[in-house]
This record gives sequence, structure tokens and C-alpha cells, in this order.
Amino acid sequence: MISNFIKRYFTNINKGSITNINKFRITFDPIGYIDSVFPKKYGTPRQGILVKESEGSLKILGKNALHMLKGLEEYSHVWLIFCFHQNQHINSKWNNKENRTELKFIEGESRDDLPPTIRPPRLNGKRIGIFATRSPHRMNDIGLTLCKLERIEKDIVYLSGIDLIHGTPILDIKPYIPIYDNVPDASFPQWILDKPNTIETIEFSINSLENLQKLLNSNTENINEAKELISQVLLSDPRSIYRKKKRADQPWGFIVKNLYIQCQIKDETIALIIDIKEKDKFYSDQIL
Amino acid sequence: MISNFIKRYFTNINKGSITNINKFRITFDPIGYIDSVFPKKYGTPRQGILVKESEGSLKILGKNALHMLKGLEEYSHVWLIFCFHQNQHINSKWNNKENRTELKFIEGESRDDLPPTIRPPRLNGKRIGIFATRSPHRMNDIGLTLCKLERIEKDIVYLSGIDLIHGTPILDIKPYIPIYDNVPDASFPQWILDKPNTIETIEFSINSLENLQKLLNSNTENINEAKELISQVLLSDPRSIYRKKKRADQPWGFIVKNLYIQCQIKDETIALIIDIKEKDKFYSDQIL
Repeated sequence: MISNFIKRYFTNINKGSITNINKFRITFDPIGYIDSVFPKKYGTPRQGILVKESEGSLKILGKNALHMLKGLEEYSHVWLIFCFHQNQHINSKWNNKENRTELKFIEGESRDDLPPTIRPPRLNGKRIGIFATRSPHRMNDIGLTLCKLERIEKDIVYLSGIDLIHGTPILDIKPYIPIYDNVPDASFPQWILDKPNTIETIEFSINSLENLQKLLNSNTENINEAKELISQVLLSDPRSIYRKKKRADQPWGFIVKNLYIQCQIKDETIALIIDIKEKDKFYSDQIL
Repeated sequence: MISNFIKRYFTNINKGSITNINKFRITFDPIGYIDSVFPKKYGTPRQGILVKESEGSLKILGKNALHMLKGLEEYSHVWLIFCFHQNQHINSKWNNKENRTELKFIEGESRDDLPPTIRPPRLNGKRIGIFATRSPHRMNDIGLTLCKLERIEKDIVYLSGIDLIHGTPILDIKPYIPIYDNVPDASFPQWILDKPNTIETIEFSINSLENLQKLLNSNTENINEAKELISQVLLSDPRSIYRKKKRADQPWGFIVKNLYIQCQIKDETIALIIDIKEKDKFYSDQIL
């Protein structure tokens, strides 16, 4: 059996091109769905590691969750492999389907139609190949993020430093093992180190702080923690290139937990938080 | 639209359990299939980083491959996200199907039937949850491996330090970015540092070296490189627990490139390479 396998498929090895290999379409069922402080794509930071205060949790599906998690609590950090489920190319044809149960390319649709390059925020409009970035807009909508493991309670994994939208389907958790995963002297392009963000200072208006105080239940949540989280999100500058370039001085908002944060960027470097409203009230008032 | 999305799905945030979220089954098409020196699961090292001499390549499928790879050459290391396509649970029901085109659970088959724990080689038989390890036997057959990017030629990515079987379907390539991916002080369980392997010394018999010399085309391949690769594979000790415990002193073999390496472990620490044969000849002689 093995012998036949080898004869059939194991040809042209190390000649740079593989032939006669079986090609597969591969299907996964998520192990769970992330519960995050970021309800939508817009405003979600690009790297969780930059927003240490962001929190989330993952309930593992299946009756054996407790066994599957046994021993994971001994690690301080984990990789999450997830699906960028809000990518437009997988969503555009599904938008009006209430009960969609599968995310995939429509049969017959070619991936060759996807843009093979993107404009990362740091490159100021220059195009680069999708495989040279961590952009969500990739051939397969698979993301990889490193986050801090806070604790495990029964079948729920509590995490911080996450950059995932609420409801993100998680495909796998893998422990972070520094002896395998650290390559401190790995080289990478200079533009990665370029200053990605222009926002340097965060100012809260008196009005916004008063509303924040009212909105938070002071028994369970700390106003300083909320301020810190809002500031970290802004310092990571989640604005799109379009908004930075074309609408830089216009009021702008994003959501964290149950808060809608309305702000304005002054002189490209100062984010003034004008107001903080309750998310649900905001949503019932207007459409984003 | 967004507002409805939030109202419908964004409930119970940060209460540790997510409800009313849409559940998806997710399908991917590989971006390519790995061309590796390891033709089969048996004998493939567990961590590519331990076997720096191992080589492979990945031809990116699709007409836009060159654009998709633009800029990747500026990184020294990359993550490969791949599918453990030879896992038994996805293969057992497919074995006799010559033209399988999809890897997935059979409809109606429950993942609850999969063992939720495994015995990692270092734990000497003790069971641990699948999410606390990098074991291939997981809920979703997704693997994550860090390897060295040697060079890119047209649509082919040349890699080293890989631990992948020939023909492995690759789902994504992501650049390794030390400023995001390095957490040098991350903590992990002590057993990760335990000595995983007992093999310390590699000895080549005169016969094996003579055959190696004959089998390698000295114009293109270097006998010292082959010896180094064989030694690295053995020092990483790819034997199964069963073989280590029950059949430790019996002759044993594995394949690297076109070579079948027959060896015997002496005193649990010395690997004596008895003979080196041509892979194809070996396969035509006997069934593994």
C-alpha cells in the first residue's frame, strides 16, 4: 500500500515542482467561537500583542473539552489559528442568508480573481504580495495570532492581548513553545519597523469621562482599565488608509465592549475622545 | 445591517460563553503541496527546527503566484500552516478511494469520538490534552511549523528545516515577524525541556558509507550533507513510543530523499547505520 503510494505520488522530489500528487479540498469545523471585546472588524487592532488589555474567551465545543485542555494551563501564551470569517469575498454572496452554515468559495469561483497583492498600512499605498504580510485578505482566510493565556475554567479558555472580532471561528489552539518558536535573529523587511501610526496622545473630554463613569458598573469594572484599553486601541491606530488619508479630520468612532467611542484626530497625532456612549443606544440611533 | 448583526449575535460578551452565534463549517483549498525529503510519516522529525538540513519546496498554485509572493524574499523565516493529511481518522475511510478530492470528517461522524488526550514522547506514556501539545492528532488536522526561507524562484518557495511529509497540503504561508512572534520569557511546562531522545551517537558502518557513496550522484549531492541530514533525523529520534519500548533492539529503517536507511539502536544511545539502500529498490523488494 505504502509502496504504491510512493510509486504513484513521490516523483520529482526536490526538483522544485511536485507532480501527480493528490489534490484535496479540506473542511474544518471550528473548535469554538471567540468571545471578544471587539464587536466588529472596524476598530479592531491589527496585532493583539500591541493591545495587552484586550480580553476574550473561548469556550471549547464538544463533550470532551475538559480532557482536550488538560495541561494547557501550564503555558503562558498560545497560538490561535482562526478564520477571517468577515472577509468580503466569502461573505458577499452570503450576506442575505440568515442560516448559512458553511464558509467557502462558491463552487466554480476562482481564487485567481482575488487580488494577489495588498497595501499594508506601513507601506503608505505601496503594494506587496499577500504572502509577504499577515493581511486578512489572503488565499485562504486563515489567521494566526499569539495571545496570553490568562486562565482556564472548565471548558473556557480566558485570553488577553487578542485582536479578534467577536464570533471569530477558532480552528485550533496550540501552545507557544519558546524553544521552537523563537528566532530572535530572524530577518525581516525594514518597513515592518517603520512607524505605523501617527497617533501619539490620547485626550479624554470631560464629557466622555463623565459618561464613561455612568456607563461602567463600578462594582465590576474599573474606569482606569477601560481608559487604558481605549487608549491602547487608539495608539495602535486601527483606522483604514482611506480614513487616514481622506477623512483624517472628521469625527470617527469605534466600539469596545459595550462602549461606542467617538473621537477626532487633531494634527494627525492627538486623538481627542469627544464622547462615550452606550453601544446599544448608539446602534439604535443610527446605522454605521 | 451591522446593527442587526450586533443585536442578533453579540450577546453575553465577556461572560465566558457565547450564544446565538452563527456556526460555520469552513472549507479551504491548499495553496500548494510540499515537496519534501521525507516521503512518509514514519521517520519524519517532530520539529523542523531540529533538523536544519532537511529541505523542501513549495510551488504556489494559481496564475497570480508571482504577485502573491512579492516581498516574501525579505524575510528569513516563515510559518507554514498545513494539513496533517495522513492522519488516520481522515484517511481510514478513504484509503481505497483512488480519486478522493476532499479531506473531511464523514457527515454524521462526531469529533467526540476522537481521543481528547495523547501521550507525547517526552511524557513517557502520561496522557495530556491535545490542545496542550503540538501533536498531529487534533480536533482539526491543522499544523503550524516554522521554517527557514532559503530563496524564491518564480512561483517556487525553497525551504529548509522542515518536518513535513512529501505531498503535505499547505494552507497558508505567513512571514515570521520577531517583534510580534517572539515572547522569550513565555512560560511552558517543564517536560518540554526533558530529554526527549535517547540517541546520542550515530555510527555509520563501512558498508553503509560505501553504498551511500554509490547511490549519491557526487556531481550534485554531497556525501557529508547526506550524512549530516541522516544524523540530524536520528538525533531527533523519530521512533514511536511503541518502537522505543517494545522493539528497541530490533533493526529499523526510515527514508530520506531517495535513501532507505537501515539502522539498529545499541544500548539505547547509539544508532548504528547498518546499510543504506536505494529507496525504490527497497520498496520493490518488500512492503513496509
